[in-house]
Amino acid sequence: MTEDATLDPHAAQVLALIRMAQRPAYETVTAPDGSLPLLTPMSEVAGRMAVQVGAQYLQQATGGRGVLLGGVAGVAPAKVVVIGAGVAGSNAVQMAHGLRADVTAIDRSIPRLRELDAQFHGTVRTLFSTSDAIESAVAEADLVIGAVLLPGAAAPKLVSSAMIQRMRPGSVVVDVAIDQGGCFETSRPTTHAAPTYTVDGVIHYCVTNMPGAVPRTSTFALNNATLPYARALADKGWERASTENRGLAAGLNVVRGAIVHPAVAEALGLASAA
Amino acid sequence: MTEDATLDPHAAQVLALIRMAQRPAYETVTAPDGSLPLLTPMSEVAGRMAVQVGAQYLQQATGGRGVLLGGVAGVAPAKVVVIGAGVAGSNAVQMAHGLRADVTAIDRSIPRLRELDAQFHGTVRTLFSTSDAIESAVAEADLVIGAVLLPGAAAPKLVSSAMIQRMRPGSVVVDVAIDQGGCFETSRPTTHAAPTYTVDGVIHYCVTNMPGAVPRTSTFALNNATLPYARALADKGWERASTENRGLAAGLNVVRGAIVHPAVAEALGLASAA
Amino acid sequence: MTEDATLDPHAAQVLALIRMAQRPAYETVTAPDGSLPLLTPMSEVAGRMAVQVGAQYLQQATGGRGVLLGGVAGVAPAKVVVIGAGVAGSNAVQMAHGLRADVTAIDRSIPRLRELDAQFHGTVRTLFSTSDAIESAVAEADLVIGAVLLPGAAAPKLVSSAMIQRMRPGSVVVDVAIDQGGCFETSRPTTHAAPTYTVDGVIHYCVTNMPGAVPRTSTFALNNATLPYARALADKGWERASTENRGLAAGLNVVRGAIVHPAVAEALGLASAA
Amino acid sequence: MTEDATLDPHAAQVLALIRMAQRPAYETVTAPDGSLPLLTPMSEVAGRMAVQVGAQYLQQATGGRGVLLGGVAGVAPAKVVVIGAGVAGSNAVQMAHGLRADVTAIDRSIPRLRELDAQFHGTVRTLFSTSDAIESAVAEADLVIGAVLLPGAAAPKLVSSAMIQRMRPGSVVVDVAIDQGGCFETSRPTTHAAPTYTVDGVIHYCVTNMPGAVPRTSTFALNNATLPYARALADKGWERASTENRGLAAGLNVVRGAIVHPAVAEALGLASAA
Amino acid sequence: MTEDATLDPHAAQVLALIRMAQRPAYETVTAPDGSLPLLTPMSEVAGRMAVQVGAQYLQQATGGRGVLLGGVAGVAPAKVVVIGAGVAGSNAVQMAHGLRADVTAIDRSIPRLRELDAQFHGTVRTLFSTSDAIESAVAEADLVIGAVLLPGAAAPKLVSSAMIQRMRPGSVVVDVAIDQGGCFETSRPTTHAAPTYTVDGVIHYCVTNMPGAVPRTSTFALNNATLPYARALADKGWERASTENRGLAAGLNVVRGAIVHPAVAEALGLASAA
Amino acid sequence: MTEDATLDPHAAQVLALIRMAQRPAYETVTAPDGSLPLLTPMSEVAGRMAVQVGAQYLQQATGGRGVLLGGVAGVAPAKVVVIGAGVAGSNAVQMAHGLRADVTAIDRSIPRLRELDAQFHGTVRTLFSTSDAIESAVAEADLVIGAVLLPGAAAPKLVSSAMIQRMRPGSVVVDVAIDQGGCFETSRPTTHAAPTYTVDGVIHYCVTNMPGAVPRTSTFALNNATLPYARALADKGWERASTENRGLAAGLNVVRGAIVHPAVAEALGLASAA
Repeated sequence: MTEDATLDPHAAQVLALIRMAQRPAYETVTAPDGSLPLLTPMSEVAGRMAVQVGAQYLQQATGGRGVLLGGVAGVAPAKVVVIGAGVAGSNAVQMAHGLRADVTAIDRSIPRLRELDAQFHGTVRTLFSTSDAIESAVAEADLVIGAVLLPGAAAPKLVSSAMIQRMRPGSVVVDVAIDQGGCFETSRPTTHAAPTYTVDGVIHYCVTNMPGAVPRTSTFALNNATLPYARALADKGWERASTENRGLAAGLNVVRGAIVHPAVAEALGLASAA
Repeated sequence: MTEDATLDPHAAQVLALIRMAQRPAYETVTAPDGSLPLLTPMSEVAGRMAVQVGAQYLQQATGGRGVLLGGVAGVAPAKVVVIGAGVAGSNAVQMAHGLRADVTAIDRSIPRLRELDAQFHGTVRTLFSTSDAIESAVAEADLVIGAVLLPGAAAPKLVSSAMIQRMRPGSVVVDVAIDQGGCFETSRPTTHAAPTYTVDGVIHYCVTNMPGAVPRTSTFALNNATLPYARALADKGWERASTENRGLAAGLNVVRGAIVHPAVAEALGLASAA
Repeated sequence: MTEDATLDPHAAQVLALIRMAQRPAYETVTAPDGSLPLLTPMSEVAGRMAVQVGAQYLQQATGGRGVLLGGVAGVAPAKVVVIGAGVAGSNAVQMAHGLRADVTAIDRSIPRLRELDAQFHGTVRTLFSTSDAIESAVAEADLVIGAVLLPGAAAPKLVSSAMIQRMRPGSVVVDVAIDQGGCFETSRPTTHAAPTYTVDGVIHYCVTNMPGAVPRTSTFALNNATLPYARALADKGWERASTENRGLAAGLNVVRGAIVHPAVAEALGLASAA
Repeated sequence: MTEDATLDPHAAQVLALIRMAQRPAYETVTAPDGSLPLLTPMSEVAGRMAVQVGAQYLQQATGGRGVLLGGVAGVAPAKVVVIGAGVAGSNAVQMAHGLRADVTAIDRSIPRLRELDAQFHGTVRTLFSTSDAIESAVAEADLVIGAVLLPGAAAPKLVSSAMIQRMRPGSVVVDVAIDQGGCFETSRPTTHAAPTYTVDGVIHYCVTNMPGAVPRTSTFALNNATLPYARALADKGWERASTENRGLAAGLNVVRGAIVHPAVAEALGLASAA
Repeated sequence: MTEDATLDPHAAQVLALIRMAQRPAYETVTAPDGSLPLLTPMSEVAGRMAVQVGAQYLQQATGGRGVLLGGVAGVAPAKVVVIGAGVAGSNAVQMAHGLRADVTAIDRSIPRLRELDAQFHGTVRTLFSTSDAIESAVAEADLVIGAVLLPGAAAPKLVSSAMIQRMRPGSVVVDVAIDQGGCFETSRPTTHAAPTYTVDGVIHYCVTNMPGAVPRTSTFALNNATLPYARALADKGWERASTENRGLAAGLNVVRGAIVHPAVAEALGLASAA
Repeated sequence: MTEDATLDPHAAQVLALIRMAQRPAYETVTAPDGSLPLLTPMSEVAGRMAVQVGAQYLQQATGGRGVLLGGVAGVAPAKVVVIGAGVAGSNAVQMAHGLRADVTAIDRSIPRLRELDAQFHGTVRTLFSTSDAIESAVAEADLVIGAVLLPGAAAPKLVSSAMIQRMRPGSVVVDVAIDQGGCFETSRPTTHAAPTYTVDGVIHYCVTNMPGAVPRTSTFALNNATLPYARALADKGWERASTENRGLAAGLNVVRGAIVHPAVAEALGLASAA
């Protein structure tokens, strides 16, 4: 993020503090309802961006199949499959639906799928996540967006190399979960400078820090989300702030050299110090 | 229609006149814009009914595949294909969309498809009518609604026996065009008393006069549409009324024993007397 | 349900276990938020089906009033009243709204009504449940759907015989709560083979196990919902699984011959063993 | 209109010309498709305003019934009846629907009702205009908006004194057609200074020149609509402009002292000079 | 509220009890989820009314800018800013959106803004509440609705006199929070008899008890909400009812002369007796 | 277009004929209602693509302002201005609205703006085209899409260099009218290989033949549209086909060496041979 300058000075100073020393992880600060208020805005941005990025790489000039997401009257739209209907996934669904694609959302939480069904009045296909469902949906897709994010842990590899192989040449996959290791077996991190590579004819977009492409929007979003925490940290210091706010404490990964977050420890193959 | 009693006496008397003697055909009276104002309400009713009839016969008790049109969250909806996006077809599309099915509308008029695309904000798949498009859509459909109506002429047989054969057992077809001969090769007229028969495992609903199933709605609709014409006929007699209103004249099929409507003549294999 | 074959073998085996011996009741397994994850999909299916069944029996051939749910332009739509806006009820509301009926939803939970009001942007009339509200809404309705379900307990009789008597001949009532005894005083269980009977000119559809009419959809829905529980039961046995998951334990009605579920005991007039 | 100052000088000068001498009537200038481009924006404004005015006078402080147009969750909304679904009427429908009232639109054109039905996806009740339909709708209404405008001619009195008498005390009627004489039998012109009067307990709002209440919006709207005509008049003079543009010629009511517009002549009980 | 007569006698009697003696405050009775079930309906009514009141005072006759909230095609709509997106605020948003204004909702809860964004499919602008955001939004607004309500406590003054000064003459502010002191620095309570006053050219509508303008709707809404509590109070007496229902106890402000509600005590500058 | 191979052989052969010899111009073949059936699908594709291209170049990596079109909850969306609301423009509006941008559509046809207003229920801002309106809208825009296409004639330069200069650095303009010369003064044709250049900090995307980026979608769309004409040309030859179909004749620009299309002649500075 290059636009800290747009943060107000108070917040900027605190963000610097946050990044320093104790490395509390944005992505594990927890709200009372279990959600992740500092990760959420970045997931929203990444989920929304995933669709426009996918649309872009489906163009022929970049090696894509040459299809327009929404088709036009008389020509069927492209098929977009979104795996994971959490924050990132449901934002991707919104945008793909907005561009008039044929959208399928897959998740293992039926209540989450019910919310999508209600929100879109049944105009988004919702599928319970089984390997069969994923396999057949991916095989027919023009664009697959992987958006399975588990807080602080590695993303599960829900789409195998074999599934990628069965996709049509020029199809596109966007891995929003790449920061947690990715949810395609064929994913490996890329950068905004060299954002894609091709495996078996399928274009892979696996840029880490996707929100960095739209820093103006991302910074405002992050600023909004961190302000209350930043104020608490600045006013009280990290120790007292973390003591008084268990959600903020959950954001501490490393305290005086020891890994204290259980999922991080587990992901690194260590027993948790917690 | 058994509820003429609900018409006001003036209209009822005139309707009797209409049916009598000169047999002006409801279905060929023409509005200044070329539409068919007396046929339209019946097509609306039939198109809307087609979906609820289709939903009913997809139930297992009546031999259907046992699928719910809209599915539920996590389970994909049924696929409904509507062939013909005129009045009957677009009303069928509305209802299938309202029941949250996966809807495909096929028509040979791209402007008509554009209107559907705009009206449903892209949530109904529109396909230009080619035999390929029809064939592949029908093969995957749970419910096919045939709604290709040409004014006063025989409907084209757009779905062949071979296509029906490739549908899954327990699928349903509803032929809204049966009054003009039907648009499935396998269609033959049925009645409200015995509405369906099965060909190659596919349930056929081909009831002529579908609006007769909901006479209260149909009579009001027809009454609304005929009132202006009825008044003109009652006030002026059919000869003067037809002379003054070319659209009404277009409703005359048989005048003093001669077939005067070109499409009717052509359908019967006769040269038109017009 | 006749299509266990579509379940994967693992799940099928576990379902057999579930049905056996200890008879844990699907309808009382409880999620952490108090909802009933195994009952919910069946309520969704039944609620959605209720509308298409109602539309069907309003046709004249089956003795109905002969009205089309959505009417057509210029002719008022039918009036649908849904009593109970829980899972079944709100799914019925969705479908009735989708078919363009004039829909009234009645519930005693104002927050639930608010959710409906927001979801449908005010296009569904919501009424707080009082006997007055029910009485006057029912008197004018073409179709009443009873969807008041209390977990494991008898449904309250919110619509009296007197109210049924005041409905117009050919109106239809569908009792989705019939499995818990029904919420119309005039309800008695029927079957898919003989689904309806008439009281005071009002057609009653009170089929127990409505989802059995669309087994393909229902089985997938149930399969999705049970999979996590089935895996736990298979891996751990019912005793350990129930111990570790209080929601699953809540699904146990009978343990070694004793009724352990309080609502079941109460419904049967017994003191609970719990 | 008090804000001609906001018009650009060129247009203002031309408008002055228009108002002068030959008195071409805004309300009868005709577009190639038969619509009235200079009347239309004023009808849009008046139709939209009619609903907010109606909402205002339904408040108790101004003698109204004390109902909120949209009700709230659990409390039924107010009933709004819009008679006439042309430009003014359909704009009133939009706003009443937007405020979540229970809206009925009545018109004698079924195609127009079909357009409303499609536009609002069936969430506005459409009724074919018969005296029965009007009578029973008005009797139950909280707010009736009369919006039957015939170009240059007197509005028909579709709502009689007797119908007004049967409305509930504190109900409101807004007569958008008052500039053409009004479509309630009880209507008489009022002003922005004294906008309402009461007949049989029913509040009447019959302000002529309703758009004058929102001059900023109205002037922009009128300015937009007149600009092309104004330019033609300024560049060519009224005689040549009217000769070259038959629609503009249709706006001439009085030429050198003779009434030339047939509907105006008829409304004044004169034979047309045309 | 003047229409207690419309309450059923049982409820009316209990309401009288409630108002008497112990003065439990409607606005602090608390539901298990922390919401305020007796305040909510009044906030809904006030929020919805705020928009129609704002539209009314924007008319020129009452000193307003003369703009129509929704504009018309070709003329930009008015800008409505709603500060606070709780119950009152989100109801105001709904109505302003329904009248086709350009709507901005400001709140300090991002999850709440997300819900609005999802509900309106992104067609309402949502802004995180900072003083900058409020200042620049207010400066451009035609109508500002202040809807920041804190349970039982004074509303924060989010809009300063300086911000009001920068608004255009004839703009309107409606302070829904006036019962808690108002959220504009320039607010002071007014009545339905003299509802507005002007500061720096900006019309202020600060009527306390806004729902009193639509008593029919408000009474039904309140009746619905209080019924369960009223029954408990009547059956058990206030002491036992309050003991058994902690939410009802939270509604007690004054017990035997002592202020027991902490926020009330704090607002009055007293230490809480609780 | 590189995928003629996907056309059926019959159509491909005819297309070759079309391109040959007489050079009938796709873009001037006219339907009976005056629309341009062969140009329309390409305009639809280009209009829809314009938004996704704009979103892409607003990313920071390509020099853009770094904003996400739809923003996220709490962060305002980007401002998209679409100049021209014909086929290309209204498709651009649809997509920008679908991506949840803040959309303004500008056109000189008020009826066209009314259609947009109705279609999007007032959630797209519509402005009558004046140079003032364009100037102020462009100055605040993040993305401007120029979509003013006049059949067979040069596009008017509605956006001047000075207006471009006042835009913020990193803003993007997409000129869909570039094939007719473009509607920005600063436009010059680019290619898919080098699609953009920057003027005064504003990124210009002016690729001619935009639909070539999505050839699969474009070819199907064009194939659908040309099929009827192709069949007529193949069956009858161009001379007879053009004689019998005046719309097809309108597609002839050059007949035996003489320019016969008036707009083409005028654009080239020649008197028309027609």
